[in-house]
Amino acid sequence: MNIVVAGLGIIGGSLAKAIKKYTDNYVYGMNRSHEPLEKALECGAVDAKGDQEVLGKADILILGLYPEAAVEFVRKNGMYINKDCVVVDTSGIKSEICPQMEQLSADFGFTFVGFHPMAGKEKNGFDVSDADLFRNASAIIVKGNASDAAVERIVSLCTKIGFGRVVYTTPEEHDRMIAFTSQLPHVLACAYVFSPNCPYHNGFSAGSYRDVSRVANINADLWSELFIENKKPLITEIDTLISNLMLIRNGIEDGDRRELTKILHRAKLIKEELGE
Amino acid sequence: MNIVVAGLGIIGGSLAKAIKKYTDNYVYGMNRSHEPLEKALECGAVDAKGDQEVLGKADILILGLYPEAAVEFVRKNGMYINKDCVVVDTSGIKSEICPQMEQLSADFGFTFVGFHPMAGKEKNGFDVSDADLFRNASAIIVKGNASDAAVERIVSLCTKIGFGRVVYTTPEEHDRMIAFTSQLPHVLACAYVFSPNCPYHNGFSAGSYRDVSRVANINADLWSELFIENKKPLITEIDTLISNLMLIRNGIEDGDRRELTKILHRAKLIKEELGE
Repeated sequence: MNIVVAGLGIIGGSLAKAIKKYTDNYVYGMNRSHEPLEKALECGAVDAKGDQEVLGKADILILGLYPEAAVEFVRKNGMYINKDCVVVDTSGIKSEICPQMEQLSADFGFTFVGFHPMAGKEKNGFDVSDADLFRNASAIIVKGNASDAAVERIVSLCTKIGFGRVVYTTPEEHDRMIAFTSQLPHVLACAYVFSPNCPYHNGFSAGSYRDVSRVANINADLWSELFIENKKPLITEIDTLISNLMLIRNGIEDGDRRELTKILHRAKLIKEELGE
Repeated sequence: MNIVVAGLGIIGGSLAKAIKKYTDNYVYGMNRSHEPLEKALECGAVDAKGDQEVLGKADILILGLYPEAAVEFVRKNGMYINKDCVVVDTSGIKSEICPQMEQLSADFGFTFVGFHPMAGKEKNGFDVSDADLFRNASAIIVKGNASDAAVERIVSLCTKIGFGRVVYTTPEEHDRMIAFTSQLPHVLACAYVFSPNCPYHNGFSAGSYRDVSRVANINADLWSELFIENKKPLITEIDTLISNLMLIRNGIEDGDRRELTKILHRAKLIKEELGE
């Protein structure tokens, strides 16, 4: 197959590297700035530079772009995309993106499948991309109007490049779950390091500090877009977290050790029930 | 030296194992219940069972007990402890414990040094203890009234068994910093898993979920004691966190991407400044 990867950041770059490492598909790279593309060509993450002509013979187009930029890319280049092509985004939000993409796919004739590869790092850019970033990760798929054959083209690729499982969902369920599993940890990592004691943690900290604060090393541009475009589910999660923090806070203030133990033990039971 | 370890949970057990692995000191174990002590004898984590007679010839007594239980142990056994012995606790709180221990050391004649080994796991008990738990960890020392020679006896042992650094502090600074670095992450891990979406996270989650929720697998008994005995600093941290969560929450609700980017970017700068 001819696979075009547009946007060679950590996600696009890692997908390109994985496809070259684990399959014999031909990979074209496209990137707004020059440098990542040159690096990708140099290290063999892509075989050649893509352009509008290449889009006309693509079997799969992977959009490794920020959500709105991905829609913009398709709006601008839709007329050049092969009508047999399956286009996937890699966005961390779906309700805002999928309907627009489906409209564009209807307008231009290609097929769109929503795709969210559940992996990342606390750093960004092609330099930290990694062919094995998706090893055992979850590939979330929003089928929408796509045919089974189109979805299978993506799922089969995911399996070959190391994803551990495929999860099918709707835009709404995706966004509600991602608000909890991914966006909320980013919000709270930022809020956490705002403590006036944070700059002095060295020597007083261990794994707990490291784990909670890790993703505070945030790509502020990207995540402010993701947060605002998923406003409702995310605010629901933040409000839920705050009210549960208050529950524990008030338990501490009351000072009734038995009551507080009961509250905390519920958390342990939730983790145990999940086998974690 | 003769070293007595009273309380063979994850911390006491790991210290005993590390001392046996990295030094040639003789280690006695004491434990309220029988099983951990038998296991420790069997695997060579301790050389022999300790008792009141053994306390009389101890050079170091390590209390691997919950904070109040540690004070109780010393109150009950203080009269048997060798007057040249250096007694250390391993408590995660100091303002509540150090003054009581110093009074007891004055009453009975031994020396007390406050000690907090900054390492742990999300599991507890002798079974998960590990000779290398403290590799590169921070050893926090509260000197109090102890002589330099007494402190040196502990610090030299810490260095031999793998601690990466020694930090000297006061009970108040210790408790303020630990509220932020260790207690707050435990509080928020519990509050986090209380989300109604938590039980359904599988397939939608990756590193962020795993890292934030890890310590929700909490020892509720121990941490409810630690939280309540460090009420003031911890509530200050929780309130600070909540107000910073509100700051981000309101930024999301307002929907001004430039403003939200500015807020989030501050978190990145804090992490960068710390070289993290």
